[in-house]
Amino acid sequence: MISYEPVRGMKDYYGEELYKIKVVENAFLKIVKLAGYQEVETPIVEDFQLFALKGGEELRNTMYVFKDKAGREVALRPEFTPSIVRFYLNSLQHLPKPIRLYYLGTVYRYDEPQFGRYREFRQAGIELLGSSNIYSDLEILQILIEIYRELNLINKIRLKINNISLIRKILNKLNISDNLQEHFLHLIDKGKIDEALSLLPNSEYTELITNILSVSNLDISNYNKIKEDLTEKYNLKDLIQDLDRIMLLKNILDNLGVNSYIDLGFVRGLAYYTGLIFEVLHPSVSFSIAGGGRYDNLVELYGGTQTPAIGFAIGVERTALVLEEPNIVKEKQNKIGVIILSDEAILYAIRIVDKLRSNNYIATINLKSISISKLIPSYAEEGYSFLIFIGKKEYEDKTITLKNLSTKEQVTIKEENLLDYLKQII
Amino acid sequence: MISYEPVRGMKDYYGEELYKIKVVENAFLKIVKLAGYQEVETPIVEDFQLFALKGGEELRNTMYVFKDKAGREVALRPEFTPSIVRFYLNSLQHLPKPIRLYYLGTVYRYDEPQFGRYREFRQAGIELLGSSNIYSDLEILQILIEIYRELNLINKIRLKINNISLIRKILNKLNISDNLQEHFLHLIDKGKIDEALSLLPNSEYTELITNILSVSNLDISNYNKIKEDLTEKYNLKDLIQDLDRIMLLKNILDNLGVNSYIDLGFVRGLAYYTGLIFEVLHPSVSFSIAGGGRYDNLVELYGGTQTPAIGFAIGVERTALVLEEPNIVKEKQNKIGVIILSDEAILYAIRIVDKLRSNNYIATINLKSISISKLIPSYAEEGYSFLIFIGKKEYEDKTITLKNLSTKEQVTIKEENLLDYLKQII
Repeated sequence: MISYEPVRGMKDYYGEELYKIKVVENAFLKIVKLAGYQEVETPIVEDFQLFALKGGEELRNTMYVFKDKAGREVALRPEFTPSIVRFYLNSLQHLPKPIRLYYLGTVYRYDEPQFGRYREFRQAGIELLGSSNIYSDLEILQILIEIYRELNLINKIRLKINNISLIRKILNKLNISDNLQEHFLHLIDKGKIDEALSLLPNSEYTELITNILSVSNLDISNYNKIKEDLTEKYNLKDLIQDLDRIMLLKNILDNLGVNSYIDLGFVRGLAYYTGLIFEVLHPSVSFSIAGGGRYDNLVELYGGTQTPAIGFAIGVERTALVLEEPNIVKEKQNKIGVIILSDEAILYAIRIVDKLRSNNYIATINLKSISISKLIPSYAEEGYSFLIFIGKKEYEDKTITLKNLSTKEQVTIKEENLLDYLKQII
Repeated sequence: MISYEPVRGMKDYYGEELYKIKVVENAFLKIVKLAGYQEVETPIVEDFQLFALKGGEELRNTMYVFKDKAGREVALRPEFTPSIVRFYLNSLQHLPKPIRLYYLGTVYRYDEPQFGRYREFRQAGIELLGSSNIYSDLEILQILIEIYRELNLINKIRLKINNISLIRKILNKLNISDNLQEHFLHLIDKGKIDEALSLLPNSEYTELITNILSVSNLDISNYNKIKEDLTEKYNLKDLIQDLDRIMLLKNILDNLGVNSYIDLGFVRGLAYYTGLIFEVLHPSVSFSIAGGGRYDNLVELYGGTQTPAIGFAIGVERTALVLEEPNIVKEKQNKIGVIILSDEAILYAIRIVDKLRSNNYIATINLKSISISKLIPSYAEEGYSFLIFIGKKEYEDKTITLKNLSTKEQVTIKEENLLDYLKQII
């Protein structure tokens, strides 16, 4: 009849697994609020065109697309950035720049499900609109670092970074169209370097591009080599600033004690990046657990005035996957079960439960229809600390009988003294 | 090109409006956790059949349904309960009963958009599985009340309640099939009483049903009349317990000081209710802002063993809509802008920002490229309390220059004294 499994690629969350997700989300929320970011929420259902325009080939092919009852071609968002830019263009342009926004929610991609990759997954991210300053690159990286430090993962992760503007500028010199650049970068992303290069016209730059793409860990010696080539061989001196910018960022990351490396052959799946791009890697998984970059042309491409921007998204489940157990400290809170032994005491019991909750105790009225002798071990097993018994006598005397499930002690006390008593013994 | 508006019926959220939504969500989360509920998260994309089976006619006609790339007929969830029951059947049956679960997320209905009704909206709700006891009805109502008390709305709202088992039992006596009962109740819900009654076979019960449905505010006098009819006229004595159960609940609500009334003609849109049903009404809006009820047969209908259950969902946006301004107390937190006046001070500045955030101050590095004389009013306007200036001198002396934007005072202090200084003056 009905399958109890979620639809293929989807997943239900509960207990420990959901708890880890909340740990990641709460670390994210704490840091981005302290960094002065404001929350935005946009719909999951958007116009397909919004994502098709500049999402990149892979994204376009893995989108959930359908027609709504009025025939609109809509998609379940595969990522947030286009929605945030749309919202900015619609309603937020009057805000003073730079604008700092954060979001948290689910995105959808019709990929083959596998370890660490579901068709519905959570992204927690930020977008910083209105600054092209290197300080804004740093701001974004610093926030990312602070989040992973908050999660006790900062010593485990490694940042892969690049400045895509280097390649972009060479492609622009070759008059490669935006669409072809997108396809070129997509092939690079897929590791199909030769196929990518075959798209380009024969020129003096082919060797330069090949050389640049092959630098998977930029250090001072290959930095000097490329710099020399740009200056003397190719007359592309203006590209040195792009190389220097990424070197400066790397230098600051080093100084902050963050493990990072510059991979000049690194490209990301989304087609709208124009400058710094980065991904967070963790040794125990083969995929990146967060990523982002600069997209200085997207607002303009959507018809707005030129507005530089940069942002990142954290893969919430993927980050939760690498969280280490010892770092998960569960808040211990006392749970109290209230057992009503006489129906006439119900209102009295409801008021006691209310009072307990108002004072931050987790309290439930007993709904188990088993004997008292079975109730006690059953509540103990569910992690309750105390049981309160309310019978006819307690109701009439305005008392309660309290059983401590760890010490097994049992006392009858005045109801008005309950909170003081609990404070004393807890 | 691309529309900046969200897709029709969808909505973007930001600022004050989103803040109110968070106020509602946080009140909900606080109370349900104190009531011992555990969070679950289920996918937005589900098998269409899951909702079609027992959602009711209206829901079925307003669902977002489409085929995914593999041809599966899927729907965007129009509500949570069927997903929670599916998840329970798949993975949670081993948990000790009763099981207390809560959820929070968006649902989708292709309705005509209007005030207070979008096609994507948020529901925050709970489900209590495994108890048919009247105490579980009370538990659910108590939690609902505590949430609206937390929101300072308890004196404004009114609870409309009914026990749908009364009508159900009469329809069962008439051997009305489940499907026909669903259609009958749907018509009652739409106010089409005559059309509904015309579905029934002629019987002695038609007059009884008509009489029951007409009681829009059950009090002691019409209670006695119906009780007498059930006993003497219709030989339906076993229905009196259903009448008594709702009277008892109403009585307890009265004692708790909660405004409520019993409407025996009240039916809800969802087809799976079997007992207590209720909605929260507010004088300033025409729609209900929350609702729920008992569904003792749904688990069995999905193929599980008979498991009584009850729950509710709060309409988050609708509740946010009736929140009163004075009740919204915004947490005031000090925002500090850090202005770097010399590039060599960048690392020093990053460390200061880090330190400020670690001590719970909102801190940002300046990204505005305007003159200092313009910076000060610009930050003041954005609600910043302080600016910190870091030039070459501050960097070399390990000091900072702090400007208080309300008093206009400016001091230069040792960086190590910054936190103590801020604590003193704030």
